[in-house]
Amino acid sequence: MSEKEVKIGLVGFGTIGTGVAKLILEDGDSIAAKTGLRLKLACVVDVDTKSARPVKLSKGILTNDLDKLLKDDSIKIGIELVGGTKAAKQIQLKMLRAGKDVVTANKALLAEHGNELYKAAHENKRCIAFEASCAGGIPIISGLRTGLAANNIMAIYGIVNGTCNYILSNMTSRNEDFAEALKQAQRLGYAEADPTLDINGGDSAHKLAILASIAFGCEIALSDISVEGIEEISKDDIRYGGEMGYVLKLLAIGQKDKGGGISLRVHPSFIAKDNSLARVNGPFNAISIFGSAVGQVMYYGRGAGMMPTASAVVADVIDVALGNSATTFAHLHLKPRSETEKLIEKIGDSISRFYIRVMCKDQPGVLAKMAKVLGDNQISISGTLQHEGVGPDNTIPVVIATHLTRQKNVSAAVKEIKELDVIGGKPVCIRIVDIPEDKD
Amino acid sequence: MSEKEVKIGLVGFGTIGTGVAKLILEDGDSIAAKTGLRLKLACVVDVDTKSARPVKLSKGILTNDLDKLLKDDSIKIGIELVGGTKAAKQIQLKMLRAGKDVVTANKALLAEHGNELYKAAHENKRCIAFEASCAGGIPIISGLRTGLAANNIMAIYGIVNGTCNYILSNMTSRNEDFAEALKQAQRLGYAEADPTLDINGGDSAHKLAILASIAFGCEIALSDISVEGIEEISKDDIRYGGEMGYVLKLLAIGQKDKGGGISLRVHPSFIAKDNSLARVNGPFNAISIFGSAVGQVMYYGRGAGMMPTASAVVADVIDVALGNSATTFAHLHLKPRSETEKLIEKIGDSISRFYIRVMCKDQPGVLAKMAKVLGDNQISISGTLQHEGVGPDNTIPVVIATHLTRQKNVSAAVKEIKELDVIGGKPVCIRIVDIPEDKD
Repeated sequence: MSEKEVKIGLVGFGTIGTGVAKLILEDGDSIAAKTGLRLKLACVVDVDTKSARPVKLSKGILTNDLDKLLKDDSIKIGIELVGGTKAAKQIQLKMLRAGKDVVTANKALLAEHGNELYKAAHENKRCIAFEASCAGGIPIISGLRTGLAANNIMAIYGIVNGTCNYILSNMTSRNEDFAEALKQAQRLGYAEADPTLDINGGDSAHKLAILASIAFGCEIALSDISVEGIEEISKDDIRYGGEMGYVLKLLAIGQKDKGGGISLRVHPSFIAKDNSLARVNGPFNAISIFGSAVGQVMYYGRGAGMMPTASAVVADVIDVALGNSATTFAHLHLKPRSETEKLIEKIGDSISRFYIRVMCKDQPGVLAKMAKVLGDNQISISGTLQHEGVGPDNTIPVVIATHLTRQKNVSAAVKEIKELDVIGGKPVCIRIVDIPEDKD
Repeated sequence: MSEKEVKIGLVGFGTIGTGVAKLILEDGDSIAAKTGLRLKLACVVDVDTKSARPVKLSKGILTNDLDKLLKDDSIKIGIELVGGTKAAKQIQLKMLRAGKDVVTANKALLAEHGNELYKAAHENKRCIAFEASCAGGIPIISGLRTGLAANNIMAIYGIVNGTCNYILSNMTSRNEDFAEALKQAQRLGYAEADPTLDINGGDSAHKLAILASIAFGCEIALSDISVEGIEEISKDDIRYGGEMGYVLKLLAIGQKDKGGGISLRVHPSFIAKDNSLARVNGPFNAISIFGSAVGQVMYYGRGAGMMPTASAVVADVIDVALGNSATTFAHLHLKPRSETEKLIEKIGDSISRFYIRVMCKDQPGVLAKMAKVLGDNQISISGTLQHEGVGPDNTIPVVIATHLTRQKNVSAAVKEIKELDVIGGKPVCIRIVDIPEDKD
C-alpha cells in the first residue's frame, strides 16, 4: 500500500525521548505495514547535544535550537518530553502556535496547566495527545475516551505510581521498613534520587487530575484533590492490617455520587486481600474503572519506564497522524471548573471506613476509654485487634477498624484519643477502602 | 456546545439490541455532553415486532421491513445484532451497499466471512466497527488498534468465553462435575440451552480469529486455529493439576515466533496459580497481551451480557460518527491469507509442556514402563504425582508433567501408553502453558 510520510519533531532527548527515537527508527517498518504511516524523526531538540544515547540519529537531526523545529513547516507533530512545568509549557505553546499538534507525557504540566493548554490548542485548531501522561504503557486514556465512551463513569480506583507500589509491596512481602524499601527502589531505578513527588502522592494526584477530568468530563484543579503520601507508613501497620485481611496500596480515587458530587483523593488505602488491585505488585500499575453499562473493567501493565512510555507516545503520534486525535480532542468538552468546583466533596465530609492504631499503656480500662471517645463521635467499631507483647515505653498496639464514618468525625476522635492519659505516641489512622468488586 | 444529530438504524432487537436501545435512549444526554453527538435511534428492524421489551421506542420506529432502514438515507450507521452468519451477512452487505457504516457484535460472522465483508466495506468506502465482537465490555480491539499501535504484538493469552470460565471456576472451587457446573451455568443464564459453541471452544476460536488478525496484521481463517473444548474435562484432573500448582482455564492463544511463525490455539490449559489470568473467575474475561515495547498489558472485565456488550456497540457508534472508525478501518491492512497461511504453525509441531494422567493397575513396574515410552519419544518428565487409593477396576491415577516437547511426540507416546497392559481407560492429556508473566 502507499505510505504517507509523517515528519516529527521531538523536544527532550532523555530516557523517554531515546525510547521514542528507538521505536520510530527500529520499528518503522512494522508501524508502516500496520498503519500506512512512515514516521520520520526530522528534528530532535535537547540542551545536551553531546552525550551518547543508545540510539543513532542521522547527522544534523540533533540540535539545541528549538526554532529549527518550530520553523520547519513540514513537521506537523511535536513531541514534548522535557518534563517540568515552566520551559515545557512554553515549548508546548510555541509548538501549538507554530501549527503543530502536540504529543506529551508531561502529567505535571497537564495537571497544573492543562486547561490553559487545551484552550490554546483549540484556539490554534490543533490538538494535544497525552496517553503517555498516565500509567505509561497502559492505554487508559484512549480506553476512557473511546472504548468506554458510552458509559457514565462512576468511579476510578488506580494504583498509578510504580515507585510507591514497589515500596509498599516490599514492605508487605519482605517486612521491610519504609527507608529500606525506598533505598532498594532507588538502587533498582524504581525511585529517583529525590523521590519526594512520588512518595508524597503528588505524582498520583497529577495522574488522577488528568484521568478524572476525562472520566467525569470536567475541568479539575490539583487543589480539588486531597493528597496523602506513604512516607509515614510503618511496616507494623501493614502487618496488623494484613492480619485483618487487608493489603495496603496507595490509591488514586475518583468517585461520583448520584447527586453529581465528586470525591477526589490520593491516600494509603487498606483494600481486601482478594480484590484484583490487591494482587498488583512491584512497579506495576492497575486501574479499575466502574462504568454504568460495562460494570468493572481493569487495566494492568507497566506504568513507567523507557519503552512502555515510549509505546504510548508513539501510539499518540500515530493517532494524531491518522487524524483521530484531532477529532477526539475537538470533542473534548470539559465542564468549566467554576461549575465543577461546587461538586467537589470536602475531604472532611468524605465517608470511609478507618483503621486506627493506638499504642496504649497495658492497664485496665484502656479499650473502654477509647471506645467511649469513638462512640461520642458517632463512630462504630467493626473489629479490633490486640496482640500480647509490649511496645516502646511498655505500650501495646491496639487496632480498631471502624464502620463507615465521616473523616471529620475520625479526626475529632483521634485528637481526643491522643489526649487520653493511657496513650503513648501518635495514633495512626489509615482508610479502609471497600472497592465494590464486580462479582457474580 | 452545538450537537450533531446522528441517525442510527438497528437490526436485531433481542437482548443486546434492547441494551443498545436503552443506552441510546437513557444515556443520550451524557453521551451528547461528552461527545457532542446526539444519537437518534431512527429505525429498529426485527422479525418479531410484537414481544414486549424493557425499553420503550417511539411509535413507528420498530418494523420488520429492512428496506425501511436501507432506503432512509439520513441513517448513516447500521447496527447488525441479528447473530448467525447467513442472514446477518446479507444484512451487513446490504447496509454497506446502501452507504451505511456497519457496527456489529457478530464474532461468528467476522471470523468466518470477515475478509469478504471488509473487502465489501472498502469497495463501498464504508467501515465496519466490531469492538463488541470480542470480550464484550472490554475495549480490547481499540486497545490493540490504537493504544498499542506502536508495538509488535508477540503474544495474546485470553480467557474469552465466560461460559467456559464459569464452568471451570465452579468445577475448581466447588469440586463440581462438568455436567453439574454446566447445569448451574444454564440456570443462571451464563450458558445457553444449546451450549455447544461455547463449550467446544468454537466461540473462543471466533474471537481469537478476530483478535489475532488485528494483533498480527494478517488475514486469518478459522481453519488456521486448532480448537479443543472443555467437554471432557474431569474434576479429578482439575484437582490433581491444582495439587501440582496449576489452575485450569480455557485459553485462546496467539503467539508469534521470531521467524514470523504464528501459533493459534484454543485449548484447556493448566496455568500457574499465581498468574494474573489464573485469578479470573466466574463469567469474567481477561486478555494478556505482550507487546515489544510495552511488555505485558492485561485487560479484565465482563465478556458478555446485555449492557457490557451494548456499551461496546455504542462506543463503536460514537467512534464511527466522529469519523475515527473510517480512518482506522481505511488503515486496516491485513496481509492476505495466501501469505500468512504459510506462517501458521501445525498443531503437531507446537511446543508445550503437558499434563498426562493415566489410570494404572496397581502393580510393580508401571511407572517404569510409562517412563520408557516417554523417553523413547524424546519426552522428559518434570514431575509426577501418584496418590494412594484405588480408581475404577482397581486402577490408580498416575500423573506426569513433562518438560517442553512437541505435541506430536506426546500424541505418539500417549498412543503407545494406551496399549500398555498395565493401563485402564484412556489417558488424559492437557497442556501446561507457562505464560511469561512480566515481573521485576
